[in-house]
Amino acid sequence: MIDHNTNLLVVSAHAADFVWRGGGTIAKYVKHNANVSLVILSYGARGESNDLWNIDGQTLENVKRIRREEIEKAAGYFGVTNLEIWDFEDYHMSFDKERMDRMVTKIREVKPHHILTHGPRDAFNPDHEAVSKFVFDASVLSTSNGVRIEGTQTAKQAQLFGFEPHQSEISDFKPEVIIDITEVYEQKEQAMNCFKAQQHLIDYYGSKAKLRGNHARRCSGNKEYKYAEAFSRFFPYVGGEFV
Amino acid sequence: MIDHNTNLLVVSAHAADFVWRGGGTIAKYVKHNANVSLVILSYGARGESNDLWNIDGQTLENVKRIRREEIEKAAGYFGVTNLEIWDFEDYHMSFDKERMDRMVTKIREVKPHHILTHGPRDAFNPDHEAVSKFVFDASVLSTSNGVRIEGTQTAKQAQLFGFEPHQSEISDFKPEVIIDITEVYEQKEQAMNCFKAQQHLIDYYGSKAKLRGNHARRCSGNKEYKYAEAFSRFFPYVGGEFV
Amino acid sequence: MIDHNTNLLVVSAHAADFVWRGGGTIAKYVKHNANVSLVILSYGARGESNDLWNIDGQTLENVKRIRREEIEKAAGYFGVTNLEIWDFEDYHMSFDKERMDRMVTKIREVKPHHILTHGPRDAFNPDHEAVSKFVFDASVLSTSNGVRIEGTQTAKQAQLFGFEPHQSEISDFKPEVIIDITEVYEQKEQAMNCFKAQQHLIDYYGSKAKLRGNHARRCSGNKEYKYAEAFSRFFPYVGGEFV
Amino acid sequence: MIDHNTNLLVVSAHAADFVWRGGGTIAKYVKHNANVSLVILSYGARGESNDLWNIDGQTLENVKRIRREEIEKAAGYFGVTNLEIWDFEDYHMSFDKERMDRMVTKIREVKPHHILTHGPRDAFNPDHEAVSKFVFDASVLSTSNGVRIEGTQTAKQAQLFGFEPHQSEISDFKPEVIIDITEVYEQKEQAMNCFKAQQHLIDYYGSKAKLRGNHARRCSGNKEYKYAEAFSRFFPYVGGEFV
Amino acid sequence: MIDHNTNLLVVSAHAADFVWRGGGTIAKYVKHNANVSLVILSYGARGESNDLWNIDGQTLENVKRIRREEIEKAAGYFGVTNLEIWDFEDYHMSFDKERMDRMVTKIREVKPHHILTHGPRDAFNPDHEAVSKFVFDASVLSTSNGVRIEGTQTAKQAQLFGFEPHQSEISDFKPEVIIDITEVYEQKEQAMNCFKAQQHLIDYYGSKAKLRGNHARRCSGNKEYKYAEAFSRFFPYVGGEFV
Amino acid sequence: MIDHNTNLLVVSAHAADFVWRGGGTIAKYVKHNANVSLVILSYGARGESNDLWNIDGQTLENVKRIRREEIEKAAGYFGVTNLEIWDFEDYHMSFDKERMDRMVTKIREVKPHHILTHGPRDAFNPDHEAVSKFVFDASVLSTSNGVRIEGTQTAKQAQLFGFEPHQSEISDFKPEVIIDITEVYEQKEQAMNCFKAQQHLIDYYGSKAKLRGNHARRCSGNKEYKYAEAFSRFFPYVGGEFV
Repeated sequence: MIDHNTNLLVVSAHAADFVWRGGGTIAKYVKHNANVSLVILSYGARGESNDLWNIDGQTLENVKRIRREEIEKAAGYFGVTNLEIWDFEDYHMSFDKERMDRMVTKIREVKPHHILTHGPRDAFNPDHEAVSKFVFDASVLSTSNGVRIEGTQTAKQAQLFGFEPHQSEISDFKPEVIIDITEVYEQKEQAMNCFKAQQHLIDYYGSKAKLRGNHARRCSGNKEYKYAEAFSRFFPYVGGEFV
Repeated sequence: MIDHNTNLLVVSAHAADFVWRGGGTIAKYVKHNANVSLVILSYGARGESNDLWNIDGQTLENVKRIRREEIEKAAGYFGVTNLEIWDFEDYHMSFDKERMDRMVTKIREVKPHHILTHGPRDAFNPDHEAVSKFVFDASVLSTSNGVRIEGTQTAKQAQLFGFEPHQSEISDFKPEVIIDITEVYEQKEQAMNCFKAQQHLIDYYGSKAKLRGNHARRCSGNKEYKYAEAFSRFFPYVGGEFV
Repeated sequence: MIDHNTNLLVVSAHAADFVWRGGGTIAKYVKHNANVSLVILSYGARGESNDLWNIDGQTLENVKRIRREEIEKAAGYFGVTNLEIWDFEDYHMSFDKERMDRMVTKIREVKPHHILTHGPRDAFNPDHEAVSKFVFDASVLSTSNGVRIEGTQTAKQAQLFGFEPHQSEISDFKPEVIIDITEVYEQKEQAMNCFKAQQHLIDYYGSKAKLRGNHARRCSGNKEYKYAEAFSRFFPYVGGEFV
Repeated sequence: MIDHNTNLLVVSAHAADFVWRGGGTIAKYVKHNANVSLVILSYGARGESNDLWNIDGQTLENVKRIRREEIEKAAGYFGVTNLEIWDFEDYHMSFDKERMDRMVTKIREVKPHHILTHGPRDAFNPDHEAVSKFVFDASVLSTSNGVRIEGTQTAKQAQLFGFEPHQSEISDFKPEVIIDITEVYEQKEQAMNCFKAQQHLIDYYGSKAKLRGNHARRCSGNKEYKYAEAFSRFFPYVGGEFV
Repeated sequence: MIDHNTNLLVVSAHAADFVWRGGGTIAKYVKHNANVSLVILSYGARGESNDLWNIDGQTLENVKRIRREEIEKAAGYFGVTNLEIWDFEDYHMSFDKERMDRMVTKIREVKPHHILTHGPRDAFNPDHEAVSKFVFDASVLSTSNGVRIEGTQTAKQAQLFGFEPHQSEISDFKPEVIIDITEVYEQKEQAMNCFKAQQHLIDYYGSKAKLRGNHARRCSGNKEYKYAEAFSRFFPYVGGEFV
Repeated sequence: MIDHNTNLLVVSAHAADFVWRGGGTIAKYVKHNANVSLVILSYGARGESNDLWNIDGQTLENVKRIRREEIEKAAGYFGVTNLEIWDFEDYHMSFDKERMDRMVTKIREVKPHHILTHGPRDAFNPDHEAVSKFVFDASVLSTSNGVRIEGTQTAKQAQLFGFEPHQSEISDFKPEVIIDITEVYEQKEQAMNCFKAQQHLIDYYGSKAKLRGNHARRCSGNKEYKYAEAFSRFFPYVGGEFV
């Protein structure tokens, strides 16, 4: 059961990934009083801001400013207050020891039960694949007390869940965990509408939420599920009973 | 949470499959007051009674009698009272419309939330593969009200979970669900000991329970798991939160 | 290029499969003067007529009558005139030598360049998997002149394409061929509306067509694609250039 | 149809890869008036010039000189005039931001409809795998107008096709696209003979072309195909009809 | 080491499969004094005798007669004397309890260390897939002493090896075992030439033997391998050292 | 047959990997007079020394000292005298040209027939995956005489075998080669006991050896196998007969 003892860390490669791919689930966790920490690694200024660059005289600083406003507005609809933007360059995003230590430190501070980030394959988006490995590796290092970082203490191994990539099948994505987001779907719609320049994605992820809702009903026999989000999981489920 | 509203149907191809591969989980469900129904499709007289056939003058009837005693004793240790043995011929087991109707009827009567049976691949055991498809197909038919069987009403789609096959990797088995059986492990040991003629399997599945306990600890960070059983799942998890 | 020399054979397991999964493509082939032959193997009376069976006093004959009307109306919207319903029992559908000979004969008569039918895996629908193998095997037999059937002559090996199953990822479906259906999408909508009792599927496949349209644009860079259908292919593409 | 509006970019890791693995297809595109641009990333001096290094007193400069002559002669047989050799070190080849920008720039200049390069897996050749990712990533970056490179304009997403690796099965290669090269096979033979020091490869790829020709006939029923080359594809086919 | 204590059972679905796909290996086992038993399940009269049926007035009996002569001549070149033709109908081949008992009996008589037969997938040949499962299942039943067949005694589990299918990659074939056939290649050529009506296959499998020879050299570093045949394996290798 | 002409190179990422995952096989090769060279890339000080870091005032130097003693003691039980510890930093381990040249040089000196190292996937251990690629790439470079390293001569391509990872199934491990270690199991136990701080792993790999022994018996029918170790293989087996 989600409650105030639940720690969720969300790591998004670009500005809006967390909205399209996990916004409903994030809204739900906040609504049920979980501690949600959101890290956005880049503004997506190079790779995911096509429309902004079509404006004459556009500058990198201006693109970042606009994207920051969109991010903050969308996060606001979800009620996320713990938000960091790390401003890495995107397309391509690369990682070194310093960035790894920063992520390990973040995980050790948040002590997340669950980490929601990109899955290992995304057919059209090399950044997403790189972030997936980066976050996973950091989660492993965070548990090892030989990885000495001043002022931190080891975390328990977090469970990682992967966003559904844009083109699921050719990215070898399997929907292993389908989360019902019916009760918060309105918030997801509002958040998606913060990114008006990407109307085609608003339509797309609206349709997707309905399709996953259909799958949720079919797999479970529960007719009340209307909207859902799908995720992959990095590890087996471990627990006391079938779920 | 497992309680008296939980319906679990277990379908075992041969006499002892349910003990080696799911005994701890069955014991746990009974202990927590679930309604557990156990269907054993065959005595395993042809394929899994090698030691008995080494006795001079052995007969099929006698083999079945001995195996029935072992099954009943093992089920007793788990506290399973709802037990049926369908006495199909094994090695090879085959299925026709009548047998399909019988399984559909059983599912419609039990209305299981979860069905525990063999997974789709078992590298050394063609019967297990045939049973997996048989039970899955029956679960689909059980939900369709055009499949008219006198005196039955459709069931909701049950969630199916697959036993770990004997040689997991070459059977393409992935441990998707790992169930902690620490609190009932003693019962599993007692039940396994009902099949004394198969001492090598008692050792084998004892070691396996410890290995899966190690994996349970490593995946979850929970140090209290000592013994576990692993299963595959046929459908995605659907629910309200990450598990 | 599709024209009056193009022979397309469509084989649908149940009444409406050809509409949800391939209706736009069928409409397009008819519109461009191809010879489209449609074989519907069953009315789906047992497995895909849930709503009809909820009516008191329903009979098998009446279900079949209603479904036949729906099929004929839908086929009419596509302009398909060459339509056969073979009235096999569904859920489960099974095949013997006589049925195999009938399909081989059909293929030898139609001499299709392309056969559109179910793909090899469909996670929730055993009938679809059985039909896929049945049609594929028949296509192989149809080319062999040792398979002697009175009054028939061997066909060239047809190219087979597989419908997208309802839950694509867990059915291991990959969209290998995405067909733009923008110009005929209205016809597909009309045909889908012939199956009013399945409103949730009309919504579902409407959303799906938009999603596949998005993928078509993203993979090709062609902005004019609005609606599309996805298919798997059974054989490699062979030809004179990259496509 | 291939014509003077068709832009094909070929990227070859080492000196002769483009000949063994795609020479027939390249010859065909040139013959039908396509604009073919060929980029050869390295001379293969370290990894694919074994015979040359067996000569006493051999030097790196001399190896490169010989290989350049072979490349130019082979390209000549295909009629390729737009040829660049980037002279990267091979075994191992590595890539940085500058090299990425150079490839993005090249793609933006050529605006290829199709890119032919190495596929993602090559069991015995780490360079080929690295080049595959390098070219694919560059093709994605080339479409994004946030990736600002002086003097360039974004390209549409090119379709990528992968060479058949030397040992196809253990490299997880599937022949998704088989191109008939019968009409230009003589040119491929001449080009292969430019690399006389590798006689075993001339034999090997001669046999391979015949085998793929056999597959082309069997898959299509077209008896006129004698020689063929096989490729993987990175994206689904998108278009107006089955091919 | 192959010697007179080595028992090899070869099971071929149709007349010539054992020649194209395993002839060199069979010849080698005979040459080194192994006991080779060959079972040919069908004459391939319906599915693999196209050319014979093109002759006016052809009859089934005559086709079988010609194929029997070819089989016997080819087996003669290998020195195989223990040969049975079971004359099952092909295209499609099907199996019942009686046929299963017959194969179990054969295995119990031969007590093979190795069984060479078709692998589990063959993209264009449903018979080959059915035979693969039939032989594998029989090998499992042969070891179980509850499978009572008058006059037989259980065998140890044989190791199964799978022929390379005609189109290896799309049949998911991996060359796990590559056998050098250089010393007996001439015999394989002679045997292949017994099937003159299939000249395209003689060329094809000649080229294939050279390709696999190249792979054998590349994987092992042994330059003396000129011709080879590739096989899949059904079980892991078990032994005392790396091989 | 293992003898004094057999060269085996073992490359272990961290201090104890070679013991848990390959100790029995190493002991066996030494016992049968093979030349065994052991390279340990790191002390595992950061990632695999958790217990040591729980001691107050622990230092990196002290951790390394303790681990070196454990390594040397364990290697002593196996009789390995040719041992190098390269002292790379672990968690994460990274590789540059200098390290690659060092490994190529080592391979050229040892001229191993077999290299035993980590397999390509290890679900919880990014270092193991990086080492697998590092060693494989070095083995390829070692065979190419264009890779000029002063004082070295090219080696023949070594056969690579991969350790079983801790959680085999979720690491996509298949036991392709199972080595009987019954005769040296006592030595493996002694060596494992050198790492007393990891008692849970001693239990774990003891159970694992018994399970793999069971699989060895089941796959081969040889009842004398009691303990075994499983490995993956990087290349197909090439040789003169089925093994």
